[in-house]
Amino acid sequence: MTYHYPNGKRYTIGTSPLSASNYKPKEKNWTYGKRGMTFEEDINETNQYYLDQGIAVIHKKPTPIQIVNVDYPKRSAAVIKEAYFKQASTTDYNGVYKGRYIDFEAKETKQQSSFPLRNFHEHQIVHMREVMNQKGICFVLLRFSLTEEVFYLETKKLLIFWDRMNNGGRKSITKEEIINNSLCIPLGFQPRIDYIKIIDTLYHLND
Amino acid sequence: MTYHYPNGKRYTIGTSPLSASNYKPKEKNWTYGKRGMTFEEDINETNQYYLDQGIAVIHKKPTPIQIVNVDYPKRSAAVIKEAYFKQASTTDYNGVYKGRYIDFEAKETKQQSSFPLRNFHEHQIVHMREVMNQKGICFVLLRFSLTEEVFYLETKKLLIFWDRMNNGGRKSITKEEIINNSLCIPLGFQPRIDYIKIIDTLYHLND
Repeated sequence: MTYHYPNGKRYTIGTSPLSASNYKPKEKNWTYGKRGMTFEEDINETNQYYLDQGIAVIHKKPTPIQIVNVDYPKRSAAVIKEAYFKQASTTDYNGVYKGRYIDFEAKETKQQSSFPLRNFHEHQIVHMREVMNQKGICFVLLRFSLTEEVFYLETKKLLIFWDRMNNGGRKSITKEEIINNSLCIPLGFQPRIDYIKIIDTLYHLND
Repeated sequence: MTYHYPNGKRYTIGTSPLSASNYKPKEKNWTYGKRGMTFEEDINETNQYYLDQGIAVIHKKPTPIQIVNVDYPKRSAAVIKEAYFKQASTTDYNGVYKGRYIDFEAKETKQQSSFPLRNFHEHQIVHMREVMNQKGICFVLLRFSLTEEVFYLETKKLLIFWDRMNNGGRKSITKEEIINNSLCIPLGFQPRIDYIKIIDTLYHLND
């Protein structure tokens, strides 16, 4: 894996873009500007970059809240005094790229050798199946936080591992399985996590 | 305008589906089941119908909230004790239909002769322009609450009226302009507001 130049120049995916099987752990012999940013911040910054550049319109959905009690003080904004977090019925991110519907979820683990499937909720899996049936572009971004590696795993492949679990198999995806079934996304400068490049490759939207 | 039979049978758009200019005010000589439902409830029920039938996956986005203070009591759910409503940076509804990105906003007025443009916020207009640039299917559903009429107005046409206002013109769209530039959606039984049928007509997705 080559590193990229932090001058905004686009990163070029390696020789085998349709598989991450040529993946090698990166050597950290270079320093990185905004290290310490969370995965969510990286994705939000990426989406903002896509928006600013007119590349794509992707937003994170607000966290769903059940509001129970609201106070309306005179001459100032309404204050929510009691509310509860609700479980989301969809994935976190969606939007549009070249007319196509884009939908994804981003998950992170501190484990090193596998990715636990408990990170996903049943309703998210149901939603992703529905999006697939409507021919939306649907995937998950998986991050191994200790090594800062990010992988793009198509929903149809995630579902194979999900169904394996439901049939009594292992409750996680091994790192090797992820490497063999997904595409790695090198951490870039701008955009930070260039998943649109992967979509271009997989769906030939740039031809 | 003919009325429909409340037996779930699909409503057939009239002879001139690309214009509502053949529109006539409906005669209310029939009773209606769930009268009194709000516009939002009608749309949510429509989206649920599309979801259940595998027709489309469209969701309302949660209301964005700025959370200030959360209490974490032992052995029970986290309680949000102080939070504020934030202005949404996008429209309320989006999703996927036949691979295409769908994005819309729904607005209602109690006026009878025109639709005030102050119902839309600048940031929503900006968002709709961005979606159009990405070739998403983008529109607004306008409802005249007193007559219960719903119109499908494409964003590109809304923007003409919006720009007219910004150039010093009138701050609303007259009812006649709406009739001439949009498609009316007859209130149905199931789905209540069948906007996907309009999309099929406009974009030839059912050919």
